[in-house]
Amino acid sequence: MTAATVYVVGVGPGDPELMTLKAARVISTAPVIAYFCRHDKMGHARKIADSHIKPGTKELRFAYPFTTERLVNDPSYHPDMSSFYDECAKQIAVEIEAGRSVALLCEGDPFLYGSAMYVFDRLESVGPCEVIPGITGMSGCWTQAALPMTHGDDVLCVLPATMPEDDLAQWLKQADAAVVMKLGRNLPKLRTALERAGRLQDAVYVERGTQEEARVLPLNDMNGAAPYFSLALLPGRRGVR
Amino acid sequence: MTAATVYVVGVGPGDPELMTLKAARVISTAPVIAYFCRHDKMGHARKIADSHIKPGTKELRFAYPFTTERLVNDPSYHPDMSSFYDECAKQIAVEIEAGRSVALLCEGDPFLYGSAMYVFDRLESVGPCEVIPGITGMSGCWTQAALPMTHGDDVLCVLPATMPEDDLAQWLKQADAAVVMKLGRNLPKLRTALERAGRLQDAVYVERGTQEEARVLPLNDMNGAAPYFSLALLPGRRGVR
Repeated sequence: MTAATVYVVGVGPGDPELMTLKAARVISTAPVIAYFCRHDKMGHARKIADSHIKPGTKELRFAYPFTTERLVNDPSYHPDMSSFYDECAKQIAVEIEAGRSVALLCEGDPFLYGSAMYVFDRLESVGPCEVIPGITGMSGCWTQAALPMTHGDDVLCVLPATMPEDDLAQWLKQADAAVVMKLGRNLPKLRTALERAGRLQDAVYVERGTQEEARVLPLNDMNGAAPYFSLALLPGRRGVR
Repeated sequence: MTAATVYVVGVGPGDPELMTLKAARVISTAPVIAYFCRHDKMGHARKIADSHIKPGTKELRFAYPFTTERLVNDPSYHPDMSSFYDECAKQIAVEIEAGRSVALLCEGDPFLYGSAMYVFDRLESVGPCEVIPGITGMSGCWTQAALPMTHGDDVLCVLPATMPEDDLAQWLKQADAAVVMKLGRNLPKLRTALERAGRLQDAVYVERGTQEEARVLPLNDMNGAAPYFSLALLPGRRGVR
């Protein structure tokens, strides 16, 4: 028998069939699964993995103390999130010490903007840890949009829309291809930045890529609020034609 | 019965268990598979998919007319590659017209620096086409290195090492996190660029991530030739601690 192990499992962008064979195997055999969620929701990663979770599997539900209602520059943000991740790691450690492996589910890929990284950083001394990569949310979105992103020697920049407009415009000017994340309330700012970079006409808005409610449209036509699971895509230059 | 379809299938970074459930299903049911390879090799994507290919499946083997022995700035490079992709698309079209679906295999993710994109661009009029995203080579590498890459509002830049040293140093200075691809003969130049950007100590070299012969070491300790399946990783800032 192998030692109890923490598996940090990327479950992909939304379509349950876009989980890897390895993720499906680990989720269906782990005695304990853990996942992040909003206090009032099931959790997106939990939902994606649903059909692979065997009856009787123990579930650790890690409800964020807050999500978008507190800003990242609020002085309480970092200490409170830090305590939250400490508590998550503690709950996982209890299971490992009792000899039970834990699969910590994570949307997309665990090491690309994943909450699971903060728990991963806290688990070094707990026992063996194995990370299973997942299809990223951005891959899900550019697949949904049927948009080849990078050709030949293109530079790809992945940018959070939270940065100041000047910086955003500068990055968008320099990059061959770009993915802009965390749109939400930053969408009007992004639109202006794209315009300043001369690239508004090429930008594509994608919401919930690979999920049933997926939506793809020119970013310039997108009005109203952008949800969390949305991205802007700017394809790179064309290579060989 | 559904119409004959071209599936452009990402098979992931190397470990066959890192294929998606959807990729495995499509590969095991398609009457025809197609893949790129070097004239004298089996083809990496074909090898990854091997255990899912049923006996009797027809195989279209697309052998590149040249790989690293011709430089991209050689005037014959683009026209010759263009003819090659035309020919690939033609062979796929023959199968589709005969009513047989084709799974075109592609390492990593098809829309991120994939050869399959050039064929995809040529298939618009052939019939229905579905793209299946895959775990990228870079995800495979940062998983292999146990290296969380981007936290919070980090900017991630994906850079080809083929660019001039000055540009490379500039990008490496600006980016929070970076992935540098196409090392090969560019490794000494990358080392100098990392040094100029003050980031040589943080760079990690990864070869064949998720494959049996995987190798991870500080980039500064890497001597000798870097193969095609190698990357340099520069992790971003740490977020919440």
